[in-house]
Formats: sequence, C-alpha cells, structure tokens
Amino acid sequence: MSSPTLTFADRAAHRAWLESQAGLPAGFRVGTASLEFVPVEVPKPSRLNVTLIALDRPTPAFAAKFTRNAFPGAPVIIGRRRLEGPTLGAIVVNNKVSNVCAPGGVEAAERVCAETARALGIAAEEVLPSSTGVIGWRLPVDAIVEALPRAAAALQPRSVLSAAEAIMTTDLFPKVRRVEVGEGSIVGIAKGAGMIEPNLATMLVYLLTDLDVPRAALRAALDEAVEPSFNSITVDSDTSTSDTVVLLSSRRRATPPAGEFADALARLCGALAEDVVRNGEGVHHVVRVTVTRGRTYDEARGVAKAVANSPLLKAAVNGNDPNVGRLLCAVGKHAGALGLPLDPAKVRMKVGGEVVLEAGAMRLDPEKERRLVAHMKAAELYASVAAADGVTFKPPIDFPAHARRVEIEIDLAMGPSSCAVVGADLSHEYVTENADYRS
Amino acid sequence: MSSPTLTFADRAAHRAWLESQAGLPAGFRVGTASLEFVPVEVPKPSRLNVTLIALDRPTPAFAAKFTRNAFPGAPVIIGRRRLEGPTLGAIVVNNKVSNVCAPGGVEAAERVCAETARALGIAAEEVLPSSTGVIGWRLPVDAIVEALPRAAAALQPRSVLSAAEAIMTTDLFPKVRRVEVGEGSIVGIAKGAGMIEPNLATMLVYLLTDLDVPRAALRAALDEAVEPSFNSITVDSDTSTSDTVVLLSSRRRATPPAGEFADALARLCGALAEDVVRNGEGVHHVVRVTVTRGRTYDEARGVAKAVANSPLLKAAVNGNDPNVGRLLCAVGKHAGALGLPLDPAKVRMKVGGEVVLEAGAMRLDPEKERRLVAHMKAAELYASVAAADGVTFKPPIDFPAHARRVEIEIDLAMGPSSCAVVGADLSHEYVTENADYRS
Repeated sequence: MSSPTLTFADRAAHRAWLESQAGLPAGFRVGTASLEFVPVEVPKPSRLNVTLIALDRPTPAFAAKFTRNAFPGAPVIIGRRRLEGPTLGAIVVNNKVSNVCAPGGVEAAERVCAETARALGIAAEEVLPSSTGVIGWRLPVDAIVEALPRAAAALQPRSVLSAAEAIMTTDLFPKVRRVEVGEGSIVGIAKGAGMIEPNLATMLVYLLTDLDVPRAALRAALDEAVEPSFNSITVDSDTSTSDTVVLLSSRRRATPPAGEFADALARLCGALAEDVVRNGEGVHHVVRVTVTRGRTYDEARGVAKAVANSPLLKAAVNGNDPNVGRLLCAVGKHAGALGLPLDPAKVRMKVGGEVVLEAGAMRLDPEKERRLVAHMKAAELYASVAAADGVTFKPPIDFPAHARRVEIEIDLAMGPSSCAVVGADLSHEYVTENADYRS
Repeated sequence: MSSPTLTFADRAAHRAWLESQAGLPAGFRVGTASLEFVPVEVPKPSRLNVTLIALDRPTPAFAAKFTRNAFPGAPVIIGRRRLEGPTLGAIVVNNKVSNVCAPGGVEAAERVCAETARALGIAAEEVLPSSTGVIGWRLPVDAIVEALPRAAAALQPRSVLSAAEAIMTTDLFPKVRRVEVGEGSIVGIAKGAGMIEPNLATMLVYLLTDLDVPRAALRAALDEAVEPSFNSITVDSDTSTSDTVVLLSSRRRATPPAGEFADALARLCGALAEDVVRNGEGVHHVVRVTVTRGRTYDEARGVAKAVANSPLLKAAVNGNDPNVGRLLCAVGKHAGALGLPLDPAKVRMKVGGEVVLEAGAMRLDPEKERRLVAHMKAAELYASVAAADGVTFKPPIDFPAHARRVEIEIDLAMGPSSCAVVGADLSHEYVTENADYRS
C-alpha cells in the first residue's frame, strides 16, 4: 500500500511530511500531558503520557477490533463492553503501563474513564480506555487522574501529531496517515514497534473520520480493512495483550458514495500497517511475502507468515545474505507440519523478481547471487553501527529513509487464493531493545 | 534429562568427559576425512568432512526418523527407501552442503552410497546417506568420492568422538552421550546448532548400540524416545529439511530385559537433545518450559513451544530480565489463536520456582524481581563480549560451562497432560551467526 518511492533525506523532511498528513478531521480534538511516577513492582522513576482524543459530541458511529490474546488487558475487557453502548465521546490513552493482569486493573481503568468523562462533561461509559507498555505493572491511577485536567486543557482541533507522538513506547517515529474521501477525510495514527503479530487487530491504532458513515457500515468496513493490513503484518510473531484498532466518525461531512469509504479505509490501514512494520523494533528491512495460488486465503497467509516469521530467514535478510535455502526451509516446515498437499516440483519462488526455485530445484548462480544482494541492500533502512559499550545497539536514525521492501514471491500452484504479509528482519537492535526493555 | 550439576571448568575438562562417553559399542567402526571444494553457486573455497559409520556386518536391526519438512533433502528421500530394505551396513555423512533441492541431488547421493559400498564391500542399498549444511548447493560428488578411501582407511573401533566432531557445522562443541544397559551400551552423537525445531526428528543424530534388539522393538523404542526429547526442543523454531535420527544395533550383546532398553534410549535421547539446545547458535541460556494440566499431550506441548519460541521472551531471558509479562503474552497469544478454553483466573505460572501469576493477576515485587534475576544469571552460559569489529559477535567459550536451566512452569488447570520443552534465548551471537552464515 505504501509507495516504495516515498523517501526522506532526513528527520526534518519526514517531519514535514508527517505534518502534511496530520490535520484533524472536523469534530475532533486531541490533547496530551506527561507525568512521572514510580512503579510499585520495579521502583525507579518512569515517565508516562496521557492522551485524550475527544469528539465535539459523542457519536453512535464507532467501531473497534481487539486482540485475541487469551490474557487481554483491562482496557480491552472494558472496550468490548463499550462496543455495545449507544455512543462514544472520547478515548483516553496511556503508554508505559499496559494494565494487563495487574491487580485491580479493571477498576483502575474504569476510574480513569470516570475522571476523563468528568473533565469532558460526558458519561463514563462514553470513554474508551486504552493502554500500552509493560505487562503486569499497576496503572499509576492517581498520577493519571492528576494529569487529566492538563491533557483536557491542551485539547486542540488542528493536528493529530501530538497524539501520535504521545502514544509511542519504543517507536522511533510517530506514524500518521491520511486519505481524502468525498468531502471529508480519514486520519489514522498507530503505535507499534514490538510484540507485533496481530490477531484481529494490532497494537494501538486510532482512525478518525468526519465522514457520516453509520455504525453498521463503519464496522463492516473496519472488519474488511484489518484483514489484509493489520492482520497481515508481523514484526516478531508475538500477539500483544493490548492490540486495539478504533474507528470513530464525527459525522460532520456528507456520506460518501457506497464502497468509496471502505476502499479509502483499506488503503489507509494498509499504509499504516506497513508503517508499523517499518518502525518495528530493530527493523533494517521491510520484507513483503506474497503468496499466490493457495487453496484458501488463510492457507496463503499461513505460508506467508511462516516465511515472514522464520528467524533464520530474518537474520539472513538482516545481513543482506540471499540464503534462499532458508526460504524453502520455512515454506517446507509449515507445509510439512500442516500436511499441505504441496508439490515441490510445481512450487515457484522468487526474490526481488528473480526465480530462485523452480521445478523442484534451486536456481542459483554467482551473477544472480550478486543481484539478490543488491536487491536486499537497496531495501536496507540502515546498517548496524558499532555499539558504544560494545553490546548495546541503537538505530542510528529516527525516521524512515525510504519505503522500499525486500520482495519475496511464492507460487504454491494449488488454488486460486493470494495473500501478502509484511514482515521484517531480525537484528542486533531488536536483541538490544528486548534484552532489557524496562531498564 | 541432563544433570544440572554437570559443570566444566574449561575446555579440557569438557573434553575429558566427552572421551569418557565416546567408547564405541562392539561391532562399530568410524572414520573421517576432510576435503576442500569450490561450490558452483558461491565460488569460494570451502571445507567439508566425510564421515563413515560402519558396522562389522550389515544388520536388520535399524530404525530411523526423518524431518516432516515438505522439501526433504535428497538423503532423506533415499533414507525413507532404505527403511524398507532388509539390512543396513553403513552411514555416510557429509557436513557443509545439505543436498536439498539441488539439481541432480538424489543421483549425487546415490553415487556417494555406491562408492561407499564399494569401499566397504557391501551393497549400495545398505548405505544410508546423510548431509547437513547449506540448502540448494550441489554436493561436490567427485571430491567426496575421492575422499572416501581415506575415510575408510581411517576406520577404527574405539571412539565415536572423531565422528561427533566431523559432522559439526556451526556447533561449538561435539555432542556425545552414552548409557550402559545390561551387558552392552548405547552411544549417541548429534549435530545441531541452528534450524532446530524438529518435527519427528532433529538435525543429524546417530545412535549406536551393541545390544541385540530386534528391528520392531528398536523402531518402537525410537518412536517413543523422540517425542519427549528431539521433538520437544527448539532453538529457533525452524524445522530443517534434513532432520534425521538413526538407531543401529550391531546385535553383539545379549538382549536386555524388556523395557530396559527403551528406558535407557529415552534417557540418552533426552540428554542428547538438551545438549543440542545447549550448543544452539548463540545460546546463552537453556530454558525449560514445563506445562502441566493440559487436556492432551499435544496441547501441553503446543503451549510450551509457544513460550519457548517467543522472540520477546527469548530476548528478555538473554538479558537476565525477568519480564514475565512476555511469558503471559506468549501463553495468551497461543491460547487465543487456537481458542483454548483457558481460564486466566486458574492459570498459575512460575519462574525459577517463584509464582509470578496466580488468580488472574501477576505477583511481582522488587524482592522477587531480584530473585528472578539471580535465577537467570545462574543459568547463563556466558555473557556477550564486545565484538572486535563492533558488530560481529562470537561466543567466548567453546564448551558448556554447566548444565543449568531457566525453569518456567505453567499450570493450565485444564486436564491431566504434561509436557516439557527445552528451548533457548535469543542473542547477538545468533544474529551474527545467521546474518551471514555462508561468508
């Protein structure tokens, strides 16, 4: 979905482009506030941002998708209830603490909703809570409640960019995308980085539109849009306990022609999902795995995910090493484990447009090897820079230099169904980020 | 299976212990030879070892388990045919090139078998070929055929250690285990390191016994032994295209009492499987995930593997970081994706014997955090040493300092079935090893 020609020379250029995306649709305001607290579990000072996304008036037109993880966070438990309510007026988001399986977590989130509602003059049931961060820690409710009036005072109707920044955790840069449809627009922000292989929805994504689309159509469009976007990406195969995608309509602009809204939403979700991968923890390369001629969509996606999640292939891509045997291994592992009736003699695989497997044998030669290396190098966002302390790696850039991908294509020769999954490589920066995330 | 009290002060101590394990059972000889060749695909000089494992006379008592990967290597394709034959007299192994999906691969392997048979005076159908290494490259058949007489001339009946060394690829140390049963013994060697989440069998494992156990009993014992051992380990979740476990009996010692052989074989396989993980690519910590009270064995193992394969949890263990929220996330992801009827309020999780989740909430405090860190540090095999070039990490030791593990326990409270899976952490050394394996 993302245009591979989108390039940014530096942080300032990326920043200017983000601002061009960030204008809020009519009827919305966002405000943020920052606070310090000391977690009970690991007592050292931490920072947390509170973000409010408020509608000028509560709307019946809202949709949301939540994680399928069997240990959902308190905000997800509450969010599922809110889906049944008549109207929604605001979202209150915090980063740093995900409020998952923390003692008293649901009560804590409900108190944050009640106080948010008080500050905005709406009902507590009209507030959707949303949290991301460390699992198991208690939400610092008192500190959040204290910060809420500041966030409310900061509400402004111009740009969503401050919210896109405030919801970040290990993200390197904010993620904002917009599409214009008919007389209005849809603007989305996302928070990603790690623990990303969504199952129904990814991390925290907020989609705001002023287009007057009724609840049922909104929910149907979101159901459809998440499958090829947020449900077809993977950074590290871990499905978060907090994954949430919310879509709100302020109903301030005329209803667009049937189909146009859904198409625009799908485009927006595709671009935003790829942004999430491009800013995944330690990601040097975005890898798109396109599987064709599976018997079903789920079968094609299963193969694509198996490839995108193979640690060996991910590490090879990281090193610009076209070790295509690992591609074959990943497909074969998945097919073998599931008993798919794959015919090795009919399967065809390409990397960067070059055939690497055909008629049951790999097609490799030194010239092709050089072209494959070049394809991978062109898609590299950055190379690892030696760590100052010898072992702790930090990405040298905090903006996406380009939108190119390593392209892998697998023709299963089994049926009519296709799917593309967007994944990433495995790097020293990923290990560093996750070997001691909380320190 | 492995004793956590087994420790080695240095390489020499480990070496002495290996030699104490390595005495060949009666009726076997092993010989090796090394050669240089230039791959067609990536033309730079490479080294390869040829290993012969020969019986004094061909035996009807043999068993083998092969990978379920849908792209099996040529040796696996031939090996499956050999299983139906009346007798087996030798195994010919090479490292460096796995002979998977290479043009003419089956013919190449058959020629190596024929030449091995000629050198040993047996039939080609009595030789089992076995290869490990890069996928897709052509086997350097002429060079191997030239080296075979040297390997045959080197055959000796004393120690299996030279074979355990010659089959290594990225392994840091050879893996040898023995058990004594009745009047004889079983000795096993394994080659592991990467691409390890076996499905039916792991990498290359050769189990040799002089005990006279008939073919049917041998095969039943192997079937039973691989499930809780080689099929319950994972280094990086990638199932190889070459996984093979072979068990040969020379029938030179009296048949042991019923059950004793199977028990001993299971113990041997358990220890050898854990050795494979302990020597996995970049492994700093061995992690044992024990799942109890699943409804079925497969369900328990599925949960255990989901935990053992979570990149986020693996990275946290690498950093001695008791980020137990990621443990909960991994269990919840798997249960959610499969729709397991897990009751979060009943699930109980422990790390290092400490309860970390109970009654739906995490049980964390600063004191417990310190104890969890200490448990992880005690199980660390080595800490990363700053890379000379800033980015290329090498393990500082080539022997296992100890046999301790990070212990994770998950009580699902759903049924009667238990399973333990042995996995490992995710490190800078893994990324380095796999980002450019072939260079």
